[in-house]
Amino acid sequence: MNKMFLEPSVRLDDDNDALILLDQTLLPAEKRFISLTDRKGIWEAICRLKVRGAPAIGIAAAYGAYLGVKNSRAADGEALLKEFLPVKDYLAGSRPTAVNLFWALDRMERRLRAEIMRPPGEIKAALREEAETIRDEDEEVCRTLGENGLTLLEKGWGLLTHCNAGTIATARYGTATAPIYLGHQRGYDFKVYADETRPLLQGARLTAWELMEAGIDVTLICDNMASIVMKQGKVQAVVVGCDRVAANGDSANKIGTSGVAILAKHYGIPFYVFAPLSTVDLSCATGEDIVIEERNPEEVTEMWYAGRMAPADVKVYNPAFDVTDAGLITAIVTEKGIARHPYTEALKAFF
Amino acid sequence: MNKMFLEPSVRLDDDNDALILLDQTLLPAEKRFISLTDRKGIWEAICRLKVRGAPAIGIAAAYGAYLGVKNSRAADGEALLKEFLPVKDYLAGSRPTAVNLFWALDRMERRLRAEIMRPPGEIKAALREEAETIRDEDEEVCRTLGENGLTLLEKGWGLLTHCNAGTIATARYGTATAPIYLGHQRGYDFKVYADETRPLLQGARLTAWELMEAGIDVTLICDNMASIVMKQGKVQAVVVGCDRVAANGDSANKIGTSGVAILAKHYGIPFYVFAPLSTVDLSCATGEDIVIEERNPEEVTEMWYAGRMAPADVKVYNPAFDVTDAGLITAIVTEKGIARHPYTEALKAFF
Repeated sequence: MNKMFLEPSVRLDDDNDALILLDQTLLPAEKRFISLTDRKGIWEAICRLKVRGAPAIGIAAAYGAYLGVKNSRAADGEALLKEFLPVKDYLAGSRPTAVNLFWALDRMERRLRAEIMRPPGEIKAALREEAETIRDEDEEVCRTLGENGLTLLEKGWGLLTHCNAGTIATARYGTATAPIYLGHQRGYDFKVYADETRPLLQGARLTAWELMEAGIDVTLICDNMASIVMKQGKVQAVVVGCDRVAANGDSANKIGTSGVAILAKHYGIPFYVFAPLSTVDLSCATGEDIVIEERNPEEVTEMWYAGRMAPADVKVYNPAFDVTDAGLITAIVTEKGIARHPYTEALKAFF
Repeated sequence: MNKMFLEPSVRLDDDNDALILLDQTLLPAEKRFISLTDRKGIWEAICRLKVRGAPAIGIAAAYGAYLGVKNSRAADGEALLKEFLPVKDYLAGSRPTAVNLFWALDRMERRLRAEIMRPPGEIKAALREEAETIRDEDEEVCRTLGENGLTLLEKGWGLLTHCNAGTIATARYGTATAPIYLGHQRGYDFKVYADETRPLLQGARLTAWELMEAGIDVTLICDNMASIVMKQGKVQAVVVGCDRVAANGDSANKIGTSGVAILAKHYGIPFYVFAPLSTVDLSCATGEDIVIEERNPEEVTEMWYAGRMAPADVKVYNPAFDVTDAGLITAIVTEKGIARHPYTEALKAFF
């Protein structure tokens, strides 16, 4: 992994207390970091998807909550809280369905309330520390996912990825990509095949980009080429992230993931889901309880920057996610260890 | 099927002896027929993919061979042949790897040689007739594929297609689409799910377009959504075309077809390959003998009309076709009947 890459894509600049963000909307054409110091800039960065990926959004929001009150002249903790709450509400409105966003902002508020009797300067320092802790914890979760995942992989293997569960979506390392980065540092010489991941092409635009940045051998394929690379023996394991894991191990992830799992089973290739425990939802019994978001047809019928490539008024079905049945998953890798069948017991044991 | 649609996409205009071609390069934005009367225009139409699909190319070339000598002033058959041969060579160079092109041109030459003792006017009429016969035979093969295929399908079924094996690639009806058109005429009310078929999007641009033109219920999906529509019970059969069928039933078709077959098997959905006997190659023992064409990376990294959507210099693997193992194919539909396991015997019996 080159040094350049080790720079996280969302972090606080120690010298001048600015949030430094990799602007993901410019990828893959341009690698540009932006520096944000006020709530409005951070709100826009989240809203306009300059920062994306659940953990990265939470981290950016936490920094935003701190920066939003950093220059407050509140005389005491209660006054500071009164300034904090509108900042929190404002940032929470940047992406109304992002669970990590609310989670991080709630955590920042809890910390403020816990320190409320202290002088404002110390409270601000505590908020800064809390945001840094949120970031550090995410990096540690990802690193541990990587260590655990790496025990399942061997040197020289070909790995297939779907969508982007990468470093730019997290504090560092990513989830499914974590063992790839750790393995790269240790000379594993993985050969990665990245599904482009229609319709939004996260695999082409993001995963291929970030792995190339790190000097990792990555080859881009269309989603429908997964079968042939498996058949030709180019792939020894599939590594994917997930949005939500049900109690029985059924896993919701970017559309197409279940198809990759079925192909992997057909060819006898292990299929590994990388799941921070924050994505495991024991209150959700099976994948049937997971509602699949349907998105705009235009994502399918109109290309990036481009004109229309399907007939006007064509009917389109555009589900954003699908559920991979637990029976198709070889193992679920978490920061507490590796779960195998039967998942209901294995996952419960981690909590 | 509406009347408009029944107009073939490649035909000879009786009144003024012009080749009438649907310009497929304008699809799906515009439906425009062009009228061609000289060899140069027909050469360009084939070369620039205004006409595509193996049978349609062969038909266009046959008409081109006739039109290329129609105005000849040759005094006898031998003189006409001397004018014919350069026309044939010229047209054969329009797409150097199109087998149907050479096949159709060879057949036109054989007919000329068979009639060579007759007066030039009669030879020209024979050439015109031969080209019409090539077209008529293709339509009859497709119609029979459709009749045979329709016996496998039931009213109200959802059907999944991959790539374009449609009417615009043939004289009429297409191959995998033939039972869809015949069923539509007979009130079968199929619901078609068309894979967009990356990288060149033949499903989005062509299949969705031609089925909509015919008033058939078609829904466009990305390739990686095939798994979810099958899981949700929207699909009762898969119908695909093929480029080449080996003696044992292994079938080469557009990249991604083998993946669809594996998904269909997983979900217990029949998977039907539509194969005119001209695509069955008994000299090819199994799919392992079929060489997979690899195409330009730009097809994957640069969108239609559009800018780049993957990192510069990313490695790309872009196989154009894959082979579906015979074991994944429920039946192979030909104009002589329906072949089932074991295919080696069943296919041989048709010859």
